[in-house]
Amino acid sequence: MFRKIFTKKDTPTDSELQDSANGPEAAAELAARLLIAPTALMQLTLADSQVVVRYMHPQRVTPGTIFIREGDGRDTGFMLLLLDGEVTVETKVASRDEPIVITLLGPGSLIGELSLLDGKPRYASCIAATPLRCAVLTREALQLLMDENPLIAAKLLLALALRLSERLRDSTDKLKMYVQLTQAMEQEIASRASIR
Amino acid sequence: MFRKIFTKKDTPTDSELQDSANGPEAAAELAARLLIAPTALMQLTLADSQVVVRYMHPQRVTPGTIFIREGDGRDTGFMLLLLDGEVTVETKVASRDEPIVITLLGPGSLIGELSLLDGKPRYASCIAATPLRCAVLTREALQLLMDENPLIAAKLLLALALRLSERLRDSTDKLKMYVQLTQAMEQEIASRASIR
Repeated sequence: MFRKIFTKKDTPTDSELQDSANGPEAAAELAARLLIAPTALMQLTLADSQVVVRYMHPQRVTPGTIFIREGDGRDTGFMLLLLDGEVTVETKVASRDEPIVITLLGPGSLIGELSLLDGKPRYASCIAATPLRCAVLTREALQLLMDENPLIAAKLLLALALRLSERLRDSTDKLKMYVQLTQAMEQEIASRASIR
Repeated sequence: MFRKIFTKKDTPTDSELQDSANGPEAAAELAARLLIAPTALMQLTLADSQVVVRYMHPQRVTPGTIFIREGDGRDTGFMLLLLDGEVTVETKVASRDEPIVITLLGPGSLIGELSLLDGKPRYASCIAATPLRCAVLTREALQLLMDENPLIAAKLLLALALRLSERLRDSTDKLKMYVQLTQAMEQEIASRASIR
């Protein structure tokens, strides 16, 4: 029932965001709703996600802030649910001076879950393109959720795993495309060599 | 304590596999041990993984069998823990007639967890390179585990998510390498064109 209501609308309108800016309770409600949106974690019911939100804390980020830094191996113990604003995700490539933009993320996005899970260095940098409002889940809070509400934790982790599966499929598709592209380019280089 | 014992040895010796072939109980014990090996799901304690194994069923596969078929969108409701034997993972690429081998998997590997999680078509084919012994976890069994033992389910899903994170990092590293490679090849093609 809840899912039926909320899957129809995965991104809140501007006026809804305005409303939700009125207080921490409204922000918590928005966080709970975004957690069950298709872009995040739709396995959770609204009641479940309201429990998850109790383990999160709100955070504001000013534009231009690099709040996750590629290669950072110390500050890895959190992920964010983006409530409001836009984030640029960038990575460095050895052959270029400027980092390349991997993706732009909007409200409902989960950010930083890889390092939260494995504790390894951040694999990309995240920069606030606009003022951000986020809900933060730390590794300690996730552990507490597992201890106190294991079934809801299991649903959250299932949803996280599902999201990772999706990203892995995307990434594999891109790799296949690159395999084909480099093959075509190899042939192009070989044919130009033979013409000369 | 358990982890300390088992992280030192992630692949059992031949004689251990021989021993374990003696009966279903020994196979269950091997499955439980492989579940907590670093190649699979090391967050689980041995006691936890023995519970997980109760939700799995054993399966044998004869050499040459394609037991997971790329693109199959119907038979997606299971993943396997490989107890014994070797598996070839292949995928088709549009520009080639022959599929390309992505990887070879040995004992302790988890196979097919992506489609188990998201129910989408299998993204690669898995072929038994040798006789296989597996422990199978179906989607229904995972649901039952979540209902009956939510904390152990949460640990299993955390471990699964961790494994997906690792694969996603690998895949992203490969993509970065391809971005550089295609840039270098573009320059090569451009320079050959200008020479002519």
